[in-house]
Amino acid sequence: MVAVAVLGATGLVGQSIVQLLVEREFPFSSIKLLASEYSAGKEVRVKNTIHQIELAEPSAFDGVDLVLASAGGSVSQKLVPEALKRGATVIDNSSHYRMDPHVPLVVGGVNDQDLQDHQGIIANPNCSTAQLMPVLNALHKAAGLKRVIVSTYQSVSGSGKSGMDGLLTSLRQAMNHIEPDTIPPFQRPIGMNLIPHIDVFIDEPDALDYTKEELKLIQETQKILHLPQLPITATAVRVPVMVGHSESVTVDLETPLSPEEAKDILSKTSDVVIANHRENYFTPLETAGTDPVYVSRIRKDTSNPSHGLNMWVVSDNLRIGAALNAVRLAESLVGQGLIHVPPNSPFLTEPSE
Amino acid sequence: MVAVAVLGATGLVGQSIVQLLVEREFPFSSIKLLASEYSAGKEVRVKNTIHQIELAEPSAFDGVDLVLASAGGSVSQKLVPEALKRGATVIDNSSHYRMDPHVPLVVGGVNDQDLQDHQGIIANPNCSTAQLMPVLNALHKAAGLKRVIVSTYQSVSGSGKSGMDGLLTSLRQAMNHIEPDTIPPFQRPIGMNLIPHIDVFIDEPDALDYTKEELKLIQETQKILHLPQLPITATAVRVPVMVGHSESVTVDLETPLSPEEAKDILSKTSDVVIANHRENYFTPLETAGTDPVYVSRIRKDTSNPSHGLNMWVVSDNLRIGAALNAVRLAESLVGQGLIHVPPNSPFLTEPSE
Repeated sequence: MVAVAVLGATGLVGQSIVQLLVEREFPFSSIKLLASEYSAGKEVRVKNTIHQIELAEPSAFDGVDLVLASAGGSVSQKLVPEALKRGATVIDNSSHYRMDPHVPLVVGGVNDQDLQDHQGIIANPNCSTAQLMPVLNALHKAAGLKRVIVSTYQSVSGSGKSGMDGLLTSLRQAMNHIEPDTIPPFQRPIGMNLIPHIDVFIDEPDALDYTKEELKLIQETQKILHLPQLPITATAVRVPVMVGHSESVTVDLETPLSPEEAKDILSKTSDVVIANHRENYFTPLETAGTDPVYVSRIRKDTSNPSHGLNMWVVSDNLRIGAALNAVRLAESLVGQGLIHVPPNSPFLTEPSE
Repeated sequence: MVAVAVLGATGLVGQSIVQLLVEREFPFSSIKLLASEYSAGKEVRVKNTIHQIELAEPSAFDGVDLVLASAGGSVSQKLVPEALKRGATVIDNSSHYRMDPHVPLVVGGVNDQDLQDHQGIIANPNCSTAQLMPVLNALHKAAGLKRVIVSTYQSVSGSGKSGMDGLLTSLRQAMNHIEPDTIPPFQRPIGMNLIPHIDVFIDEPDALDYTKEELKLIQETQKILHLPQLPITATAVRVPVMVGHSESVTVDLETPLSPEEAKDILSKTSDVVIANHRENYFTPLETAGTDPVYVSRIRKDTSNPSHGLNMWVVSDNLRIGAALNAVRLAESLVGQGLIHVPPNSPFLTEPSE
């Protein structure tokens, strides 16, 4: 049995993590729900027990074996080393550790073998990356990925509860003919609009005017698939949808693969559901609240008919893209006896800045 | 002075055509507003005169020099030959004649020279194609287009008034927690959703499970740019936005072109407005109601950094994508003295089916 803590337990993803730990009967001996001072002291029900939200501070990790963290990059930067010092293994949902060479970045069912050598921290990829991984991994194994071009259509729940509230407020304004506001966390009005800007622009020459969201999708894909040189590009766009990220994906393959062959391969890929007919495509509203990655509109790329495919990939960003993957990684760590912090972990000596 | 008729004068595009003819002081001696029996008899004001909507029937074209048609493919198929027989030149906004080898498909400022040899019918491209043309044409002239990949984010006004009403109804349902309906013309609920299906799927093997909207974008681009073999692909998606189509565009070029060079070229391209900074990107809500094609997020394609560019192209689909281009073509025909139906036009002998 495992003593678990959920860091960021009151957030959209944190709540889902708690729910999934219960639903999937994760073998926890105890569960601590940690959040900021705004939520500490509040009570929530887990299974049939009332739990009090505790303040997320270093001493809260005393006696904890496994932390599932989903409280943002700056909180992770500060508190994850504190958890490790106290002997807890951490599955981190923030972007802070994802590209660290000592941190495996893992999607369950895709690269679980990378868990083996963890140094106390395992990173959960960005939601828009995670849903692509089962699909790209299966296509790569079958025909070799040569180039990947992604345009995203990302729902507001990707920016948490404030994003969902922001969309509702913005839509109410639009429908009542009130001049639309820019409501944080968005940079422009989101109701009946599109914003080609997710996360921040980074002031580094090699960021090439990409947003951090786009760079995450590019770099995390390369890391998870062990293809550091994979030519891949992304345009990330926020759309006025509540839950569910959609992606228009073009892949160039090393070996020709017909749409029928691709459908056959993907239909046998775990976590992936494909459309059996061109008109049975998937939409985010209709698939939100379910676990799979839905792939439809699979067809030849008319700009590369012999070696290219286009497809439309939809998934609930709060599930496989966040909470579900985190809980699956926890299950995998337990199953493989990997809940431990190696004594020579580089994260035990690093200053916690 | 020209005797003008607007066919489909009560539709979203037809109304804009009438308004633009007035605003831009098109030299019409008379203007007939033609529509179906549902609207015939109604009165509308044009400039300072009250006009009665007349029934769109063959005899309505008697004495007309120029028809601007925007009443859909089946109406054009039936009535355009009747207009020609009566000596009227037709600018058709429907898809019916666009790919006919005897019909020039023209975007003002891009391929006006194709007007020269018209046989009585000039076609106006699809909205999602039209806005791309000034951009792709300028890039092609500068560096040669090698491959084009487009994912669209198309507003509901692309399917007319019923699309706009449908979005409002669908959003009201969603915001009042009513089970969302599929409201025609959409195939799925559109409020807070995305539908990767615009126009119909075509039952021909070479349609490759593409929608007609996607095939229009592909084939019309090849025709307008005189690049019949251009490798180009498209994924067309309806988004819950009222007005303004957006497109995520990836271009492979024959010759390297830096983002700075591309910005410089596009800033000198007529009808195109570019963003002067990465954070000054354009959104459909903020640019609706204006004429230009807005290009932002211009950057290197990380999957093809030496020869590739990504960009975000936004335009009001009712303007350059429809009414504005039609009126400009009318102006160009007048300016070049091209309002005439050649006596040997193939459309004068064809049966009107």
